[in-house]
Amino acid sequence: MKFHVMTLFPEMIENAMQESITGRAIKAGHIELSAVNIRDFAENKHNRVDDYPYGGGAGMVMQAGPVYRCYKNIEESIKDGKNPRVIYLTPQGKTFNQSMAKEYAKEENLVFLCGHYEGIDERVLEMIVTDYVSIGDYVLTGGELPALVMMDTISRLVPGVLNNDISAETESFSDNLLEYPQYTRPEHWMDKSVPPVLLSGNHKKLAEWYREQSVIRTALRRPDLLEKAELTDKERELVKSLLAEE
Amino acid sequence: MKFHVMTLFPEMIENAMQESITGRAIKAGHIELSAVNIRDFAENKHNRVDDYPYGGGAGMVMQAGPVYRCYKNIEESIKDGKNPRVIYLTPQGKTFNQSMAKEYAKEENLVFLCGHYEGIDERVLEMIVTDYVSIGDYVLTGGELPALVMMDTISRLVPGVLNNDISAETESFSDNLLEYPQYTRPEHWMDKSVPPVLLSGNHKKLAEWYREQSVIRTALRRPDLLEKAELTDKERELVKSLLAEE
Repeated sequence: MKFHVMTLFPEMIENAMQESITGRAIKAGHIELSAVNIRDFAENKHNRVDDYPYGGGAGMVMQAGPVYRCYKNIEESIKDGKNPRVIYLTPQGKTFNQSMAKEYAKEENLVFLCGHYEGIDERVLEMIVTDYVSIGDYVLTGGELPALVMMDTISRLVPGVLNNDISAETESFSDNLLEYPQYTRPEHWMDKSVPPVLLSGNHKKLAEWYREQSVIRTALRRPDLLEKAELTDKERELVKSLLAEE
Repeated sequence: MKFHVMTLFPEMIENAMQESITGRAIKAGHIELSAVNIRDFAENKHNRVDDYPYGGGAGMVMQAGPVYRCYKNIEESIKDGKNPRVIYLTPQGKTFNQSMAKEYAKEENLVFLCGHYEGIDERVLEMIVTDYVSIGDYVLTGGELPALVMMDTISRLVPGVLNNDISAETESFSDNLLEYPQYTRPEHWMDKSVPPVLLSGNHKKLAEWYREQSVIRTALRRPDLLEKAELTDKERELVKSLLAEE
């Protein structure tokens, strides 16, 4: 899996991806990263890539030419004959989620286009962008953080990036229940102790407790997820009484 | 506005915030950033802050003690007598959006707690966390990118960080219509020209075009937003015909 990022801030992309799990995955060769500076494709003395919007209005708009030439450069570097998916990060896009991440994780190349200022000239977007994606209903100063969020989420799903046993954790999110609470040493901390069932060694009781805690937590924090979760009759009763108390 | 970030990767937070608009805002004193390493509050030789989960299971859990001491250190540094809001970044939280960002932008101090591994010991979360927040329905390798996303979104809303005229752009997102397409020089690019209305200088026609483009785009890309948008009868007809074509 190779990520190609078209950006005005390549160092921000590189620094953030060098850390922690994605950094290890790059060193181990599970993923590759190439951050390309759009400014390198300006064709004027001051390397300007933006100009005033036609029709007036606040802010500056990124010009079609440099973005297009930057994209062509990436496309030529790929050389596998297939046109890569080109993701434009924008609050106007389809809202990103875990199932989209699973789809993207199957690609060999993914190109991200990060906007800044008030946006990018519509004409180049029409020519090169295949996917308009938003990471949520909020407005950021640019597309770099959303690209990093997507690359981090997708990287976790690329084989070899996580240990197999850790990656199982994802599944608990995808059956529409939140994860149960976690505890570690020491057993007693301040005036709080670890729930005794966790020390019991009784696997049946443990599994029941995990499941019950997941249901309770989902009911209290994300009741919207429960519509899609498969619950027993007893669990539905529990959810009803919890929501009545709220 | 001062952001305090509790993290195992303080450099990642500092590097990303130094870039672009947030970097300028820090230099100009509109916002302050303090990234605190939780590892500095370990009390053992190897600065370990994680251990195996009680009850078994994959992965490691961050211990209560170092997180608590790190928080106390921040709390003491604030000294204004008020307990700050402490935001724990987790897929289990309430989904972040622009109106939450506006609320957070009114605070003087915000503390972010970034988890890693499989989570954090529940007991310290119960003691210090006031807000559980998720940036979307996907799973990341840690809380650092979500904290950066929230700080970027909130910073934009702090007075002085953006020019006043640019900040107006936010509003177009909050009346539940997406922004119209943007064009800049050159007028003719490849075989594509700027829509003539943008060069007409006719302000009434321009306003009508902007509005119509916003409605069309929202209908095609985010029809879910239209339920909350105020549309004229003619606009409702347009939306109906567009959705029928899909």
